[in-house]
Amino acid sequence: MPKIVDHEKRRKMIAEATWRVICEHGMEGATVRKIAKEAGMSLGALQHYFTNQNELLSYAMKLVQERAAIRINQIAEQDIPIKEKVVNILLETIPTNKETMTEVHVWFEFIVYIRNKPDVFKRQNDGILSSMRNFIHILDEQQFLKNGLNKEVEAEKLYAIIDGLALHAMLEPERLNREFIKIVLTDHVERILK
Amino acid sequence: MPKIVDHEKRRKMIAEATWRVICEHGMEGATVRKIAKEAGMSLGALQHYFTNQNELLSYAMKLVQERAAIRINQIAEQDIPIKEKVVNILLETIPTNKETMTEVHVWFEFIVYIRNKPDVFKRQNDGILSSMRNFIHILDEQQFLKNGLNKEVEAEKLYAIIDGLALHAMLEPERLNREFIKIVLTDHVERILK
Repeated sequence: MPKIVDHEKRRKMIAEATWRVICEHGMEGATVRKIAKEAGMSLGALQHYFTNQNELLSYAMKLVQERAAIRINQIAEQDIPIKEKVVNILLETIPTNKETMTEVHVWFEFIVYIRNKPDVFKRQNDGILSSMRNFIHILDEQQFLKNGLNKEVEAEKLYAIIDGLALHAMLEPERLNREFIKIVLTDHVERILK
Repeated sequence: MPKIVDHEKRRKMIAEATWRVICEHGMEGATVRKIAKEAGMSLGALQHYFTNQNELLSYAMKLVQERAAIRINQIAEQDIPIKEKVVNILLETIPTNKETMTEVHVWFEFIVYIRNKPDVFKRQNDGILSSMRNFIHILDEQQFLKNGLNKEVEAEKLYAIIDGLALHAMLEPERLNREFIKIVLTDHVERILK
């Protein structure tokens, strides 16, 4: 058992090193050699955990999603007013601190990178659209959603706002700070919730 | 005179070849050598028009913006109902046909690419945010905008929706077709206009 735990821990550590390398050098500069160096291990040792670069990249991206999902679930369980909860959950997918900045930067690099390699990577569904659909569905079921809204359209709009803000916050972190992003999200959420 | 026209024409032709190479090979694969080949000219001939790769890339990106601006101005001058006009203008910045797909794909590749090279490229302002601010301002001045809206927030939200939809339409062109994008935009525009 301890060996398996160590193995998984080491894979996560390597994935985090991968994120840092992508943030610094871009996707095209994220060679296995550089990642091994960043992780403080030999190329051979790294290959014990990931047999090739694509396997490593896929894992590193999956870990981005997992980390965000964990934080979102924690917020979902909090006992706070619904509008605040919704805004706080949405904020977790937008770069407003060092952690989310790394995640979103890595994610954008990755989705643009794989667009030219449909043969190598399966189309990555980042899961945000289906999360937004679920989200709108739950809000509607619990009677928080305003009447007369088209749920499919609202999910798509929320998905666009989230990723649009994420992209812009990544490109202009000084201008688009957490306070202003929160104002924009709160404005939108108040328009769709009762 | 004819010489200057030819020179500019040739630069545009090379820029369009650059777009095609970026779409096919990604930014990291867009070497001057490949671009010259795509443009059907020698490397030496290309260097007569652009002294280095960065100059070429900057020009190719400027041309993306110019082309979109021309189409938007044409729509702005049309004699059609305001809501339809606004939706049609917004649609021009989202990939819904071959032309806008190329532009948006190239643009996203570029902004992610330059993020790691702040020393080489000046921060590119894609001008869409200031366009959206102007847009909201004009709609308000002409009394089309609903009362009580925060213009700064509305501009930022519109900017996020536009770029979010553009990104998603680029990644999932089959799912996010022109019809559905138009429904989402129309829904949003109807919510902010009287």
